[in-house]
Amino acid sequence: MTSRFRSLRGGVASPRGYRIAAAAVGIRPGTLREDLALVVSDWPAVVAGLFTTNQVKAAPVLWSQDAVQSGSSVRAVLLNSGNANACTGRAGMRAVRRSAATLAGLLHLDEPRAVLVASTGVIGVSLPIQKILDGLPALTSRLSSSAQAGAQAARAIMTTDTHPKFCAVEVRVGDRRYRVGGMAKGAGMIHPQMATLLCLVTTDAPLTRRQVRRMLVAAVEPSFNSITVDGDTSTNDCAILLANGAAGGRVPPGGQMEKAVRAAIEHVCAKLAEAVAADGEGAHRLIEVRVRGTRTEAEARRVARTVASSLLVKTAVHGGDPNWGRILAAAGRSGVRLDPSRMTLAIGNHVVARAGLPCPRAERGAARHLRGRVVRLHLRVGHGPGAARALGTDLSADYVAINAHYRS
Amino acid sequence: MTSRFRSLRGGVASPRGYRIAAAAVGIRPGTLREDLALVVSDWPAVVAGLFTTNQVKAAPVLWSQDAVQSGSSVRAVLLNSGNANACTGRAGMRAVRRSAATLAGLLHLDEPRAVLVASTGVIGVSLPIQKILDGLPALTSRLSSSAQAGAQAARAIMTTDTHPKFCAVEVRVGDRRYRVGGMAKGAGMIHPQMATLLCLVTTDAPLTRRQVRRMLVAAVEPSFNSITVDGDTSTNDCAILLANGAAGGRVPPGGQMEKAVRAAIEHVCAKLAEAVAADGEGAHRLIEVRVRGTRTEAEARRVARTVASSLLVKTAVHGGDPNWGRILAAAGRSGVRLDPSRMTLAIGNHVVARAGLPCPRAERGAARHLRGRVVRLHLRVGHGPGAARALGTDLSADYVAINAHYRS
Repeated sequence: MTSRFRSLRGGVASPRGYRIAAAAVGIRPGTLREDLALVVSDWPAVVAGLFTTNQVKAAPVLWSQDAVQSGSSVRAVLLNSGNANACTGRAGMRAVRRSAATLAGLLHLDEPRAVLVASTGVIGVSLPIQKILDGLPALTSRLSSSAQAGAQAARAIMTTDTHPKFCAVEVRVGDRRYRVGGMAKGAGMIHPQMATLLCLVTTDAPLTRRQVRRMLVAAVEPSFNSITVDGDTSTNDCAILLANGAAGGRVPPGGQMEKAVRAAIEHVCAKLAEAVAADGEGAHRLIEVRVRGTRTEAEARRVARTVASSLLVKTAVHGGDPNWGRILAAAGRSGVRLDPSRMTLAIGNHVVARAGLPCPRAERGAARHLRGRVVRLHLRVGHGPGAARALGTDLSADYVAINAHYRS
Repeated sequence: MTSRFRSLRGGVASPRGYRIAAAAVGIRPGTLREDLALVVSDWPAVVAGLFTTNQVKAAPVLWSQDAVQSGSSVRAVLLNSGNANACTGRAGMRAVRRSAATLAGLLHLDEPRAVLVASTGVIGVSLPIQKILDGLPALTSRLSSSAQAGAQAARAIMTTDTHPKFCAVEVRVGDRRYRVGGMAKGAGMIHPQMATLLCLVTTDAPLTRRQVRRMLVAAVEPSFNSITVDGDTSTNDCAILLANGAAGGRVPPGGQMEKAVRAAIEHVCAKLAEAVAADGEGAHRLIEVRVRGTRTEAEARRVARTVASSLLVKTAVHGGDPNWGRILAAAGRSGVRLDPSRMTLAIGNHVVARAGLPCPRAERGAARHLRGRVVRLHLRVGHGPGAARALGTDLSADYVAINAHYRS
């Protein structure tokens, strides 16, 4: 897949016509690290967004969802870490409106709606809005299209992530080149439903509203919607795609170029999702679950996600124990109709159960495979056409330590 | 509630007309501890059973489910720990049939179907059936109705449990006394759906088939079906109620005595479920989640179970952090339609969020409450009549340690 793209060093700053800045304004009490990021498009950008299905939605989610649905174009996205601005009621909405309005003024935009807002961090604590407002003038004066600025923005949205997550690629069809860049943050409350965590993807391709919407949905389903760290769907999940057309030209529906741009967006989302899963809180191993043979793809995804989020599977992988019975048991409770006597499971290349029965000789090889950084579980449940993949992580004592004292 | 019953020292041995034995036959390789229990009713007992909804069902579940559905009466239940006899295919079913038939011969029963079988332990390993068959004669020769035998049986079905779980009560209406006894085992793969773990309840009341069925369903829903340790529904869950009528008399439908016996069965199941939750793998704290104000009881139960099984809630409780935003976020992803601005949450008696908004002053008191052995979360989500309770546990590093190396 990578051969079709040229990788670029940057992230959201790589496509033409975007300028980025990050700052440390002190949103987390007591520590000063980068916590505010701004992405500005020099041209009005067509936008698509997918937002959390959690019914407890953070104020910035409500604001941005509304702005995306209105169909107006977007000029800026303001993102912060350190505070989710969730469960903050009317004061939370007021804070969002004020930051969008202030930023619109500084950028000489006609209306605040051209500014999307995204937040991540602790829930139920008032957003220190004055610190953000005070930081905006400096932030806007520092906008840059350098790769470094893109990396700094990715760093500014980190919560318990151990490293920033960003990537960018260039596609070329004939003489025309388009770029796609993205950034995302993990690393807990990761069990996205129809949207995910914070993820922002930029492109300089000239796409229509219909195109960005379709491309985002297509890219998010097999990437972010297939990862799980802890089974908890966040109040702040959102994935946003901006297309400002700064690279000129046309991307006709159904054409070669549309395919290339769509593939680039899918590639960037897949890379970011993998990075988020691999950096899951306390994770020592990445678990890839591939399921096939169900009636539909949706069924396969459900089985794969149930296995990838089973605590018993996650702890067995952590301990390097090829306890395949737990994997079959997790599939059996997924809610998908299955015939246990047709289930065949491989851990790595080692078939540990065939037609629901043990293959004890394979266990030694499977145990060896479990010592690696990436663990692959292949589950065949029948002869249907459905297939899907889920990415998860092992469950370690570190996960418990991180989350037992998250706010202290 | 306890005032209406007299507590007895024993477990399943307490009701009249039951004899019990336990033995160590070496089902677990390498260690010798009690692993086989036999409960015999001196009279044919009317039976009800609830079995796992996991589609990967262990051989003993298939056998016992079939026997219960046939409507014939039951004379014995054979239970073992150390091996679940799940994912063992035809050989697993043969092993069940052989043990039931052998036992039926030893007890001079007309047909093997009068013997129910239940197993718990590792999945996907062949049951060492010869060891069980060899142990049966000694087991049947040692049958006793002593309280000690009841306690030994409860010990023999333990897996990662730290102590045996059994209890018994006596109800009295007029001159007539009936007894109800029960035993259960935890402590992992606990997220019962329509049935639970291993639980056997005996009574000497003369109940009809319809009565035992109704009483068992009514007792299991608010007890075993309301607990969760790790979100994993076992392949071997089953709850069985035997009523042998050994105490004589009648229990007319709708009468006082029926109510008393039903209450006693509910009491025994509630006590056992609480013991299983409190002894959840690696648990330091018991979490009781009460939800009210939903449209239906089923909705309330769904919200309560989602909160009780959220890893982020479980780790926050483990760390003594009153991170109430995680509790609201878990409720928000439960699939039940909720209005966040109507959600009010108390941790102990401390209202930490009212109408979806923080009450920061309550946090200190809430943090104090979280230091106790039992943590109570009361969530009101609206004005509907639905109310339910779920019991869970905190998530500790010990849980990870237990499950990373379960088979080694």
